[in-house]
Amino acid sequence: MANYRRRRWRESMAVRLDLNGLLAATVGADGVAPEDLATLEPALGRVRAELAARRATGGLEFADLPYHRDDVRRVIEVATAAREEFDTLVVLGIGGSALGASAICAALPGQTSGLHIVIADAIDPEAFGTLLEQLDLRRTLFNVVSKSGETAETMAQFLIVRDRLLRELGAVDYKRHLLVTSDAQQGALRQIVNDEGFRALPIPAAVGGRFSVLTTVGLFPAAAAGVDVEELLAGAASMDERSKAAATPLADPPLALGGLLWQLATSRQKTIVVLMAYCERLAATADWFCQLWAESLGKAVDLDGRTVEWGQTPVGALGTSDQHSQLQLYLEGPRDKAVVFLRLEDHGTNIDVPATYQDLASVGYLGGHSLGELLNAEQRATELALAKRGRPSATLTLPALNAFTLGQLFYLCQMATVAVGALAGIDPFGQPGVEEGKRLAWGLMGRPGFEASRAEVEAWLARKDARFVI
Amino acid sequence: MANYRRRRWRESMAVRLDLNGLLAATVGADGVAPEDLATLEPALGRVRAELAARRATGGLEFADLPYHRDDVRRVIEVATAAREEFDTLVVLGIGGSALGASAICAALPGQTSGLHIVIADAIDPEAFGTLLEQLDLRRTLFNVVSKSGETAETMAQFLIVRDRLLRELGAVDYKRHLLVTSDAQQGALRQIVNDEGFRALPIPAAVGGRFSVLTTVGLFPAAAAGVDVEELLAGAASMDERSKAAATPLADPPLALGGLLWQLATSRQKTIVVLMAYCERLAATADWFCQLWAESLGKAVDLDGRTVEWGQTPVGALGTSDQHSQLQLYLEGPRDKAVVFLRLEDHGTNIDVPATYQDLASVGYLGGHSLGELLNAEQRATELALAKRGRPSATLTLPALNAFTLGQLFYLCQMATVAVGALAGIDPFGQPGVEEGKRLAWGLMGRPGFEASRAEVEAWLARKDARFVI
Repeated sequence: MANYRRRRWRESMAVRLDLNGLLAATVGADGVAPEDLATLEPALGRVRAELAARRATGGLEFADLPYHRDDVRRVIEVATAAREEFDTLVVLGIGGSALGASAICAALPGQTSGLHIVIADAIDPEAFGTLLEQLDLRRTLFNVVSKSGETAETMAQFLIVRDRLLRELGAVDYKRHLLVTSDAQQGALRQIVNDEGFRALPIPAAVGGRFSVLTTVGLFPAAAAGVDVEELLAGAASMDERSKAAATPLADPPLALGGLLWQLATSRQKTIVVLMAYCERLAATADWFCQLWAESLGKAVDLDGRTVEWGQTPVGALGTSDQHSQLQLYLEGPRDKAVVFLRLEDHGTNIDVPATYQDLASVGYLGGHSLGELLNAEQRATELALAKRGRPSATLTLPALNAFTLGQLFYLCQMATVAVGALAGIDPFGQPGVEEGKRLAWGLMGRPGFEASRAEVEAWLARKDARFVI
Repeated sequence: MANYRRRRWRESMAVRLDLNGLLAATVGADGVAPEDLATLEPALGRVRAELAARRATGGLEFADLPYHRDDVRRVIEVATAAREEFDTLVVLGIGGSALGASAICAALPGQTSGLHIVIADAIDPEAFGTLLEQLDLRRTLFNVVSKSGETAETMAQFLIVRDRLLRELGAVDYKRHLLVTSDAQQGALRQIVNDEGFRALPIPAAVGGRFSVLTTVGLFPAAAAGVDVEELLAGAASMDERSKAAATPLADPPLALGGLLWQLATSRQKTIVVLMAYCERLAATADWFCQLWAESLGKAVDLDGRTVEWGQTPVGALGTSDQHSQLQLYLEGPRDKAVVFLRLEDHGTNIDVPATYQDLASVGYLGGHSLGELLNAEQRATELALAKRGRPSATLTLPALNAFTLGQLFYLCQMATVAVGALAGIDPFGQPGVEEGKRLAWGLMGRPGFEASRAEVEAWLARKDARFVI
């Protein structure tokens, strides 16, 4: 009976995708036309088969994370122990090592018995200095997260924190305040773990940073906060099951969403996808999505090595705030955007607007409505205003915001990203472009072996035309 | 002597624009070529004359705000009184009524004797409810900010807060916890102020929300926090003076920046401008800029009424975090972006990385450097990495972050926006596109007179094809 109720509850918590607003039937020439769908559907069928084959041979490890229940039990164990020892968890990580944890911890409240979570992804000395000043080091656990163990920002933070801990707590005690999440086999951080005997959690070798939200990287901070991480995985698994059970590719949520956005990018010049969340707690999830979409799909060459310079620029937006900031541009500016709304059916908390100033037409109508109603009315109004101007949008509705629905959303976005990669013929993994910048920064920082990079930066700075420095 | 020292200090605090990275000489085909400059310079000369003429006849009121010293004294007076009575100031406002105050208060520390400032721009019931729970109402002043006095979100917040104050503090005392900033003459909020006798500050009639950072809208919360608002205005004025004193349009900072970005938008398909701040405290300033650029320049028709659907999409980014999120796309994706870096010469706080693990090549090099050095090295490396891929960027350097440099930055961005408006032949003021959405939302909320809008939304929702709701 408990299982039956849980199944019914989960069915009621299925994330819904309304894709009508992306179609020409709704928005006219800038939408996906029936003839586009006729060619898209078989292409999506091929992508579906290809992704299934890759999964079957272990080539898409992130997709199977919802079923790695043993890893999760280990994470919960370590997190439970940490909750007994500490009050605060500071995650030292950046990019994929920060955004997933940040998304979960901002979206879900955790438990009152959970740790207070701080994601320290920046090396801004003012921000990092202020944070360090505010912490009670004796009650703080630092989770150092870097898969490669070479990330300059995270390693610099780690060295600073290690030094402070050492000085404040002594050479014996300081170690229990550090927990390293990194590749289990390689990298400088792994070597340091081995030498120093720090506690550590492994990141699966075949899962990259931006697909790591459901690994130790995202799940440990979540579990430490008291989030039900098994429910997150159950949500992800349920999206996977819906996907597999879909009768056609266009009924498969990630394939349909990815397929239509790809179609709009390639045949309707929608070079920008706006993820607009009507819920403050989902703003960090929008940031997480922006990394996923940008870094996975922004690639110079396709799988055959041809120059394509592909990509669709993701932009995070927040309703209703960005109605008063970006919407004018979305409605009247270039027709280069597809908008994806994130909408909550039930906001959890309800605040009613009291009936006041009923004689004032421009104020009185608000009385008796709740803030959640107003928020959702604004979302619908924005959706229709865009459609009336011929601007395509999709709406993802979460019945409520909880671990189960957030897990679905993560999985949906990740699989949609991989589907677009397959349609565009590019590799959604890796980030070859950013290596050059790392070398140049190493050169400027005096890392041995990168003297030529330093010289290159200096020569470039010296070459600048003084007339254009004003 | 004090004046002499101050002048020298201010000279040392001039914001520098390095525009070399936007030129073909630096980045090749995707940069502005010498022949573009040859036609751009006279066009900018005409814009300069046009803007000067508009200012002379009072048609560009925001541009003269740095010289409205009487208004500022009044703001400081009210803020000083508020600081004696309260601990916290909550700004109830959205869009232009929130972003300027948010930018200033995030960028500048204020004084320890200043009020704690919270910008409540959202109607998310969970976020707003949590905020209300945390406040000590007896020690809190609410600044209700809406020029029109009709903004649904702000009015809903106001009604909720008014009701709580009334119930907690009684019908006499509650009034002193409300301070209204709105149009001095018209709107529902002004009428309420007059009827109820709330305290109020005026917004100049001719200054719109996104150009209001240097009016009561931005300055009152800043002064309440203890920011030196006269120094903000002095910074703005100094940028204005540099602009006026420039020998040529291309030596005039806002014209040069705006002109080159416009050139790249129109002749090099740079449809996106990324403002990438290498300083956490400037992230809110990037949000402020994004509103300014999007809402001012995203317009369907030009001044002659012709359909142009113009605009350049602004994207806020944060260094180094977005190097691990967006940079891959910027480097390898479509050539549709111009990046503007915000860089601090001196970060104020200094944190050194201790020399540790010197035998590990990928870690040891960090020792002895400061976080500020690392941050600035990453910025330079990113700038050059973009240039090597032929991607244009400009760098704005603030010698330090303070009220004087922030004032310069605000003025620079605002005048650059107006300059681009003039070059593109569009009206940078007003936001005609968003009116439709407001009507639709009013309809859904049951505002009398908008029954047809409600029916329109409902008919549209009913028309959706069920096959595309999955």
